Amino acid sequence: MTQLITALAGGVGAARFLTGLVRVIEAENLTIVVNTGDDVEMHGLHVSPDLDIVTYTLAGIVDTTRGWGIEGDTFHFLEMLKRLGVEAWFALGDKDLATQIYRTTLLRQGKRLSEVTATLANVLGVNSRILPMTDDHFETRIVTEHGAIHFQEYLVKRQAQDRVLNVEFVGADLAKPAPNVVEALRAADLVVLCPSNPIVSMGTILSVKGIRDALLRSEARKVAVSPIVAGAAIKGPAPQLLRGLGMEVSAYSVAKLYSDFLDIFVIDNADLSERERIEKLGLEVRVTNTIMRTFEDKVDLAKTVVEG
Amino acid sequence: MTQLITALAGGVGAARFLTGLVRVIEAENLTIVVNTGDDVEMHGLHVSPDLDIVTYTLAGIVDTTRGWGIEGDTFHFLEMLKRLGVEAWFALGDKDLATQIYRTTLLRQGKRLSEVTATLANVLGVNSRILPMTDDHFETRIVTEHGAIHFQEYLVKRQAQDRVLNVEFVGADLAKPAPNVVEALRAADLVVLCPSNPIVSMGTILSVKGIRDALLRSEARKVAVSPIVAGAAIKGPAPQLLRGLGMEVSAYSVAKLYSDFLDIFVIDNADLSERERIEKLGLEVRVTNTIMRTFEDKVDLAKTVVEG
Repeated sequence: MTQLITALAGGVGAARFLTGLVRVIEAENLTIVVNTGDDVEMHGLHVSPDLDIVTYTLAGIVDTTRGWGIEGDTFHFLEMLKRLGVEAWFALGDKDLATQIYRTTLLRQGKRLSEVTATLANVLGVNSRILPMTDDHFETRIVTEHGAIHFQEYLVKRQAQDRVLNVEFVGADLAKPAPNVVEALRAADLVVLCPSNPIVSMGTILSVKGIRDALLRSEARKVAVSPIVAGAAIKGPAPQLLRGLGMEVSAYSVAKLYSDFLDIFVIDNADLSERERIEKLGLEVRVTNTIMRTFEDKVDLAKTVVEG
Repeated sequence: MTQLITALAGGVGAARFLTGLVRVIEAENLTIVVNTGDDVEMHGLHVSPDLDIVTYTLAGIVDTTRGWGIEGDTFHFLEMLKRLGVEAWFALGDKDLATQIYRTTLLRQGKRLSEVTATLANVLGVNSRILPMTDDHFETRIVTEHGAIHFQEYLVKRQAQDRVLNVEFVGADLAKPAPNVVEALRAADLVVLCPSNPIVSMGTILSVKGIRDALLRSEARKVAVSPIVAGAAIKGPAPQLLRGLGMEVSAYSVAKLYSDFLDIFVIDNADLSERERIEKLGLEVRVTNTIMRTFEDKVDLAKTVVEG
């Protein structure tokens, strides 16, 4: 029986997980709904970091060491931009820039982000369907002591050094799910929440009106992989954000955020002690190795997620 | 005595000549008025080929082999753009792209092209003053059997293969000289027309309202270097354009185009036989080697141009 899978994804962590997933299922049966809260206007270009990471990863051209950007890319554009005296804290490789310029051109021509995303995935030979969570403006801002700043500014420019006072989703009240997002959640046999940041990757997607509701109504089995292992994030600023919002930094905290619609929560062996707390939220808990060091780790984790 | 020089320049040929000129005069006393008829919107970016060639040359970072672009540049952006299926016939190096993106950003912020040009020249350490001929829209179109096409499309995409029926300067009726252009022509002791295309480089500059008039009124000595040697162009499509407009392809033809305001015309040794015809136009003729193979050739030609 064909199993239709819809995954919710952020950037690097999600992409690494998806690398394994597409080895244990048919890539054609996978739809990925990607966070666009990190999207940022940079040098007049519309940059979609998470969409690119997912697309490059599934196209097999991602720089696997960094986890983002294109393999073998150079940074001559960025060097020259700095020489011209332009502030350039966001790394855009020379090849990567082609994606940003093409995307921006198509958007200016009136194409929707979902159409552009499909075009890019198609030309790069991706067999799964990649959807932005929304075609509408949506911007994640981190409220710090210096005011509310764009998530990329918080993460990349300021290296997540500011104390987080709050997180704002600008545009969330108006943003509609992109075409096919709700349909893909309804039609799925399995919905997977990738091991992505629960606030600024999963939280953004879940905040788009209609998406959480579609998850609550969907008859799919809903599985999430914890991005928190032993009270720390494998990557990124999840601990700072959870703490900033007054939450405990634990797998349990993440499970609680999803517990209204989730069926199964996958935690790391290191968090075995969390099992009971999470089960009390009404969830089935699977305990395995969630730290994806090798390709085999990724495949094994994917198998644990998809098994019946 | 300080000699103020204003040069009118196109792209590669002009830039090679200017390399010599700034060795025989004080670069600070030189103002260069540059053709912008070749400017083109490419991938949503405002590209100014001639301004860049002149700026990169005087900044000492031009790719001297090609005569355009930045030394040691790579073309990874362009390769990726082609991989994405985008038509990309106009070569933009990765470093060069930084200039285009920065220029476009500043223009979108409301800066004028002349301000952007000054900013770029300044940050790259150019000691001469570089001015676009106009801040206004101006587009050189070549009328062919397939219709009127942008000069860059004619030259780069179609490799100057079409028969030229006419040349159009779109915007010439409204374009005003950029700030300081007329003043620089009036204040100059010497005005030099670089060995650039007489139609699409010099012709465009001269077509901007007020520039030809300023030349006619200026008390400066006006010297032009012939870009035509022995009935051929050293570089570029000047023969095709002259022929297309019903003119003879000769140094004489070029001299005639400038004869209303010009004092001195510099021709190549190979065109000694043209001397008499050109003198009959009322011009002083200087005969020398105008083919700039070596750095010494450039310096010698510049000396011939500036000598009293």
